Amino acid sequence: MRVLGIDPGLRNLGWGVIDVEGVRLRHVANGTLHSQGQDLATRLLSLHVQLTDVLARMTPDCAAVEQTFVNKDAVATLKLGHARAIALLVPAQAGLTVGEYAPNAVKKAVVGVGKAAKVQVDHMVKMQLPGAVMDSPDAADALAVAICHAFHMQSAGRLQAALRAAE
Amino acid sequence: MRVLGIDPGLRNLGWGVIDVEGVRLRHVANGTLHSQGQDLATRLLSLHVQLTDVLARMTPDCAAVEQTFVNKDAVATLKLGHARAIALLVPAQAGLTVGEYAPNAVKKAVVGVGKAAKVQVDHMVKMQLPGAVMDSPDAADALAVAICHAFHMQSAGRLQAALRAAE
Repeated sequence: MRVLGIDPGLRNLGWGVIDVEGVRLRHVANGTLHSQGQDLATRLLSLHVQLTDVLARMTPDCAAVEQTFVNKDAVATLKLGHARAIALLVPAQAGLTVGEYAPNAVKKAVVGVGKAAKVQVDHMVKMQLPGAVMDSPDAADALAVAICHAFHMQSAGRLQAALRAAE
Repeated sequence: MRVLGIDPGLRNLGWGVIDVEGVRLRHVANGTLHSQGQDLATRLLSLHVQLTDVLARMTPDCAAVEQTFVNKDAVATLKLGHARAIALLVPAQAGLTVGEYAPNAVKKAVVGVGKAAKVQVDHMVKMQLPGAVMDSPDAADALAVAICHAFHMQSAGRLQAALRAAE
């Protein structure tokens, strides 16, 4: 099972791909997309083209996107919403289901606590994906989202197995 | 010159198409798209598919999207940002330039003042597009955006003509 994680942003969109084999995780690739163009429509198109290319090359089986932290800067929140729509749309266009996780859920899955510092998350991502070289902080966040999705799928799998055993 | 106006929204996305011949405007069509699906990715995909179909059927030469009013409800603003990204992306994918206009600019173009009431805008849209039957308030807003874009293009055209005459 190959998982694509995305940390959306209009200027820098991080992506990370991992393979999940049972309880084992393996790093496949990670990177950062930069939108290009003067106006917003062109920048969104640029992100769409680049992210579509990532999916075509990486052929993930499912995807997960970090939920946006709604902050007090409404204009920044709105911009992030635009970029996030592209992050959700492209995997859906490829027929994938797209998981959404709040930042605290990602931290809890990767570090064990929801209020972990960013440096702790980065450390645990590197521990769990030995050999991975992070392209950027956004790419590292994207790998954390992918790990979170893998854990949630494993939990769901164990629950189903337990239900089957109990029948 | 055929103009597509879009009033973005996740639940109801209004669209309106007008033809511009010199200073004359003619209503072509208008409608409302409703996103379908349980999760956000599926709803955005649903909007993308429907709006792509509108562009294929209507073959506009350019497009314009209303700028989002950033209000105090950050969650609503974020949702609107997602829908707005689809409204900007689809015309850009078709190779069209996409104009963006603030709500006050649309009102000023259609009614003559930036603080016009919604009922005044609707009235003026109907006056300027005789025979048009509005599918919804969102579709009427989308036609207002298209009219605003037509006026701005006409002004730009007159300016260019004046500059050429002055040479």
